[in-house]
Parts: sequence; C-alpha cells; structure tokens
Amino acid sequence: MPKGQPLSVPDDGLSTRQRRNRPLVMVHTGPGKGKSTAAFGLAMRAWNQGWDIGVFQFVKSAKWKIGEQNVMERLGQLHAETGEGGPVEWHKMGSGWSWSRKGGTEEDHAADAAEGWAEIKRRLADERHDLYLLDEFTYPIKWGWVDAADVAETLAARPGRQHVVITGRDADPRIIEVADLVTEMGKVKHPMDAGQKGQRGIEW
Amino acid sequence: MPKGQPLSVPDDGLSTRQRRNRPLVMVHTGPGKGKSTAAFGLAMRAWNQGWDIGVFQFVKSAKWKIGEQNVMERLGQLHAETGEGGPVEWHKMGSGWSWSRKGGTEEDHAADAAEGWAEIKRRLADERHDLYLLDEFTYPIKWGWVDAADVAETLAARPGRQHVVITGRDADPRIIEVADLVTEMGKVKHPMDAGQKGQRGIEW
Repeated sequence: MPKGQPLSVPDDGLSTRQRRNRPLVMVHTGPGKGKSTAAFGLAMRAWNQGWDIGVFQFVKSAKWKIGEQNVMERLGQLHAETGEGGPVEWHKMGSGWSWSRKGGTEEDHAADAAEGWAEIKRRLADERHDLYLLDEFTYPIKWGWVDAADVAETLAARPGRQHVVITGRDADPRIIEVADLVTEMGKVKHPMDAGQKGQRGIEW
Repeated sequence: MPKGQPLSVPDDGLSTRQRRNRPLVMVHTGPGKGKSTAAFGLAMRAWNQGWDIGVFQFVKSAKWKIGEQNVMERLGQLHAETGEGGPVEWHKMGSGWSWSRKGGTEEDHAADAAEGWAEIKRRLADERHDLYLLDEFTYPIKWGWVDAADVAETLAARPGRQHVVITGRDADPRIIEVADLVTEMGKVKHPMDAGQKGQRGIEW
C-alpha cells in the first residue's frame, strides 16, 4: 500500500495535484491468482467514489466471474435506485456483445473480440466511462485478434480523465510500456498443485 | 484463472468433492499492489454465495480501505434488508476494537493487535464466519505483536469450513507453510516511482 512521498519528482511541468489526478492505465498480469479479483476490488472502490464503470469481459465463461458480475450489477442497480455510488455496465463477450444487433458469432471469437475493442475505442473517444475494466483483454491481444499497437496508441492518446485496467497473463510489452501501473501476480503456492479443483465462493 | 485438471492428484484419501470443498488459507503477499484489493474482490464473491464474512483490519488508516468498507458494509446491509448475499462484519483496529468495551489504547497497538487475534481465535473456535479477511495481518506478526507459530497452529487446526485470507508484505514462512494458496504481488511499474501520489478512487 503506497503512502507518503514518491521516490522522485519528475520534471514534467505538472503540479502534484495534476499528477495525482492523472488518469491511469493499470495492468494486472502474471501467472498467479488475483488479477481479475484485484481489478474488481478496484471497481468496488471506484463505485464508492461515484464513478461510471464499464466492464468488458473478453473471455467467455459460464460461472467464473458470476459473483463479481452479480455484485457489480447489484451495485449499479443500487445507484439507479438510490443514487449511491456510480453506474455500472457489464458487457460480456460470448455470442457477440450486448450492444451489437448482429446476434453473435459463436464461431468467430476473433471478430467478436475486434468488435469489443472497436466499441471500447468509440467509448474512450466519447469519454463514456470513468473506469474501464478490460477483463482478460491480454488474451485477444496475444492471439492477434486485437492489435497491440492500436491498443497502446489509443490508450496513450485517450482524452479526459478515463482510467483503464487490463487483466490477464502475458501482457504485451507495448501495453506495459503505456501503462502507469503494472502488477505481476506470481504464483507461490496453489491448491490445484495439490490436486484441488476450483471451488464455489473462492474461484467464482 | 485456474480451470480444468489439477497437476497431480494427492494420495490423501479424500474424494475430489472433499478436496474441492476443503476450506482454504490464502495469503496475498509481496511488494506490489492488489493484495488487499484482491482479498476484497474475493469477499465480493463470497458475499454473492451468501457467506458470512468477517473483516479484521489490522492497520489503522483514515481513508485507505474506506471504499471497500463502504461497499462491504452496504452489501451487509442489503443482506439484512433483503436476504441477498451474506452478512458482513467489519472490525477495524484503531482505538481498540469495536467488540471491546475497554475503550482503546491509542498508545498500545501491540496489545490491540494481540486482542484482535485473540478474538479471531475465539471466532474460529466458534465457527463464526465462513470467510475471515485478516487485512494487513502480516505486520503485527512481523512486529512480534502476534505469535506466528500460534497463528499457524490455530489456522491448521481450525474446525469446520472456514476460509481465511491474510494480506500484507513479508508473510512469515510459518504462515506460508500452512497456507493452501499464496500469491506474491510483484511491483513491475508504479506511478509513485514517477512522482505520482495516491489518488481517490484508485488507492481508496
């Protein structure tokens, strides 16, 4: 937990307040657990600040993330009902995306992923959200479905005050390069190494 | 995100279901960000499963964790009002603990930490919660305020189906030893290295 003084003060002509309020690109990568979980913990804090949150889940999954989705959507509903916290949109790649009328291309995940990124680009240009949670977005980049250079350039040039958090293993070096904060989750010990499978409440 | 088959199947006489449902001790350690954040993401999932959650925050802090606390307590309140999710208790070490009538010992953090651990031991014996989030609990252990061997023995021998997650840097090897899952959060890149201070919505 970082507190106190920064290690150095850059010669970037910005005041401390300007630097403090600089929107961040954050990457949670590495082989260990907690990459998405920490991103959703971050979203919880963002909600509490009244931020507009957009979640884009890039890997199809029936039960994994269901807990996070239920809670985040419930928090978004609370916002709509009582004005507490911020609004939450949760978009899941699966058979297409919820904003797309095309219906979905069960067989063409590459096209779905590209469409997801195209929508995120439009939203970044429109300054639609305060926090974008691009969950498991490293994979479509790794698989060549989304162009890493385009992502890096778009993030670096995004307008306004939009925070972006990207999760997944093997983050592309070009994404790392434009990121302000990168955390590598390392696996020290995992119950699956001892023959245990994932369980309710812990993994989903 | 672990899926699929475990790497090996242990010769422990347990069925897959028994192993699957084995309660876990989880440790989030290392110098990087996301240790507590991932633990609160886990608590979000646990809430969604209807689990009884006890948070014990071992390091006094005015604003850090306020976002998590607001959201978790709001979720606990939702449970009380509508039956959704599970109950949440949030205990914070500061001037004593909320369950203590003693009033608090602003000067004696060691005694406060020991009292916190004593209460957690009582609760573990009573099987009071489904998930214990012992936030920044590595520090009172590191500082000798709480005995690592006692923690390790108590966790290893705890009855029933109680999950425990411990966060903080420099986890004691005896705690690592009894843990089922250990994740080391490594710092790859951090905005404070570039002169940036913590900011609202991101760090708290």
